[in-house]
Formats: sequence, structure tokens, C-alpha cells
Amino acid sequence: MQTKCEIQQTADTLQTLKSERTPRIFTDFIHGRWPLKYGNTVIKQKGSMIAEAGTPVSECWYVFSGQLVTYGYSSSGEKRVWGIYRKGSVVFASECLNRQNTDVFCEASVKTTLIQIPFSELKTAFDSNFSVSGQLMKMISAEYAAYFSFTRDLCTKSAFRRVCDILADLSSVFGEEEPGRTMISYRLSQQSFADFAGINRVTLVRILKELREKNVIEVVNGYYAIKDMRAILF
Amino acid sequence: MQTKCEIQQTADTLQTLKSERTPRIFTDFIHGRWPLKYGNTVIKQKGSMIAEAGTPVSECWYVFSGQLVTYGYSSSGEKRVWGIYRKGSVVFASECLNRQNTDVFCEASVKTTLIQIPFSELKTAFDSNFSVSGQLMKMISAEYAAYFSFTRDLCTKSAFRRVCDILADLSSVFGEEEPGRTMISYRLSQQSFADFAGINRVTLVRILKELREKNVIEVVNGYYAIKDMRAILF
Repeated sequence: MQTKCEIQQTADTLQTLKSERTPRIFTDFIHGRWPLKYGNTVIKQKGSMIAEAGTPVSECWYVFSGQLVTYGYSSSGEKRVWGIYRKGSVVFASECLNRQNTDVFCEASVKTTLIQIPFSELKTAFDSNFSVSGQLMKMISAEYAAYFSFTRDLCTKSAFRRVCDILADLSSVFGEEEPGRTMISYRLSQQSFADFAGINRVTLVRILKELREKNVIEVVNGYYAIKDMRAILF
Repeated sequence: MQTKCEIQQTADTLQTLKSERTPRIFTDFIHGRWPLKYGNTVIKQKGSMIAEAGTPVSECWYVFSGQLVTYGYSSSGEKRVWGIYRKGSVVFASECLNRQNTDVFCEASVKTTLIQIPFSELKTAFDSNFSVSGQLMKMISAEYAAYFSFTRDLCTKSAFRRVCDILADLSSVFGEEEPGRTMISYRLSQQSFADFAGINRVTLVRILKELREKNVIEVVNGYYAIKDMRAILF
């Protein structure tokens, strides 16, 4: 048992090192101009609702610019952020292709330009253009990988490790090397950060304080910077 | 907030009623004979390893008969079952198409007949046959939906509710109507059941005892039977 456990831990470490984990901030998955060819451009103001949980999905949305957030509510009524969709990602493709209801609420968290692709056009594109099916498969696989690793991490890792993993994930997507630190050029709200780690904000603040005190991270104008990547990864 | 919460709860309930949730026992997603056309038949004895976590995936596996189980280990070395793949499902399609390492261990939990499809053949099939890409998309979407709902339920539902949901899921796939009860014609091990609910076996046993005492379920020759579906769903 221990040997397999060690294999697993080594695998986990290697994987983190290679930044193969998919954060729940989805970006840059869909390339080319096909969403423009098939859909209609729609501009949504900050706070506009895109979909409500429990309703049928009759279209998917390609994020041209801006940001969509999917969320739900806990039984005590607290909002929980599930995923963030930025430029070059598609939300509700899987639900739309499979004619399912959505599980989540979705809204624009900033002014956002979307390409709205109705089911009939998405289905046509998926069934006639291998570039489309390949790119959608990559996007849905990324969502699958992100939720699988979140599930696994909730069951197997400490809150402290999960926070470090999110910082590693963010730096793999948004990291910019500077002398002595890696700046994360994306401002993740504390609420989303806590939700992504599966902890409450109080716990998050305590862990971030500990990381700052140990000189592992610093916060620069509201952005996180990693000063000791080794400590984040191990 | 409360209104949205109520909407969410109604949506959840409706969804459970309509059995739209995907349990983590995957079955009957891939139809037709294409895996036979593309791959090679391989018979694996009970306990044979198919893949080790942290290694590259160079092939996917179609389950012709039998059962594959994916699993990992917690940091304290406990085995955790993530998913069960039965006839007509494919394991590692997403990792294979996207040239990723696997996150999980995978083994045959009974004598299992598989179709082994190497990357090159899977890629060719995906890029030239819309029936293949459509069916693989459906399979990967199901995995995505299963892990998303597990993630959400871990964050938002009680252990008791999660156990009831798994019984509802099982009955939607394996339920057979009998006078006064729905028999679940699949024997799920207590360990897998506990892992699927994100609880330990002691908690699971306590909850199942409570459900039996309230006459909501009964156990017949090791199989679960639901006597009060309303109590399971609400």
C-alpha cells in the first residue's frame, strides 16, 4: 500500500511541477474564427445573467472578451463560484450538445463580449467540422480534468496544500517571471479563491498570512506573487 | 439570496427526480462496433493493472464486458475509488486524445474483456468519424458531469443527502421495479459507496442503518432495494 502511495505522491508532485493540472479558470481553448462563423455576437453588461440553474440549455457561449462566472448556492444560501470562463473558452457546450439542463447559474462578472451559438448550429458544427469537435473536446476535457482534480484534492489533500496548488495553477497560466518572483497577472477574488480551495474565507486568509510570513508569497497591488516556487510546489 | 437559493433547490430536486445526474458508474455510452474496428481485443484477469497514476496514456480502453475501476490513494495511504467503468464505456479517452498523463490507477475488478485502442487509431477515428467523436464527447461529458456534481455535492450537501443521491443515481441506472420496492441490480461495495459519497465506511454504515430503520431501504442478498423513493429523493 505504501509503495503505491509513494508512486501516487511522486506522480502528483511531478504533475504539479509540469503544471499539467487544469485550474478552474478556463482560457484560450478555442482557436480560430469558427464561433464567429456559426454564432451571433452579444454584449453582456457586468452582472447580466446568462443562464439559471435547473433550466434547459439551448445554446452555448464562446467568450470573445471579458469573463463569465458559473456559480451555485449552498443549502445555507451562500454563493459558491464553480468556474471562471475567459477569452477563448466555451461555456455550456457539453450541456447544449447533450440536451441537458444546466446545474449552475452563469453571469458576466465584467462587461463581456460573447458569441452565442444555438444548439442547431453547434450540432452542425460539431458534426461537420473536425476542428470544431476537436476544440470542443479539448475544452470539455479541461473542465472534466479540473473538476476531477478538485474532487480528488478535497478528498486527499490538506487545505494548506490545496491553496498552494491553486497558486501553482494560477502561475502556470498567468505567471510572469520577474527578478526574484513570479507575478500572477490575474486578480482572483478571495471568494473565488476560497471556493476553488473548498474552504471558507477565514481559513484562506489564515493560510495566505502564513505563506506571506514564511516569505513564500507576497501581495503586490492586490496581485499574488510567488517568491519561493519550491515551497509552493512541495 | 434566498430566492435564488430556493430556485437552486427546486432545480436540484427536479433534476434528481428526472434522474439527470450521472453516477460515477459509467455504462452504455458507446454504441456500435467502431471500437472493434479500430482496436485489439485484450482479456484482463481480476486485479490486472491497466494504468498507473502519473504515467503517460498512449491508449484508451473500451469495456466490452466486465468492469474497470479507477482509484487513487489519500496522503495517509487509503485507497479511494473514483470511478467504475462497465460495458459500453471508455476509460482514458480524454487523457489519450490530449496526450496527458493519467491521474489515476486503473485495474480490472473482475475478469474483463477490453478493446485496446492506441492513440494513433483513436485520433484517426475521432478526426474522421463523427459517430466516434459524438460518442466520445458524450462519454467525456458524462465523466465531467459526474465529477462536477460530486464536487458540488461535497461543498453543499450533507452526508445523509449524498448517500440518498447515490441510491437515487443507482436506481436510475440499475433499478428494477418490483411490488413495493425498486431493486438495485448492481452490487456496489461499501468502500466504493463510501468513496462516492465522500465519507468513511463507519459513517456510511450509520446512515444506511438509519435508512433501514426508517423503512426507506432494505438490503436483499447484498443488494439495496428502495422502499420509499420519495424519502430518497427529498
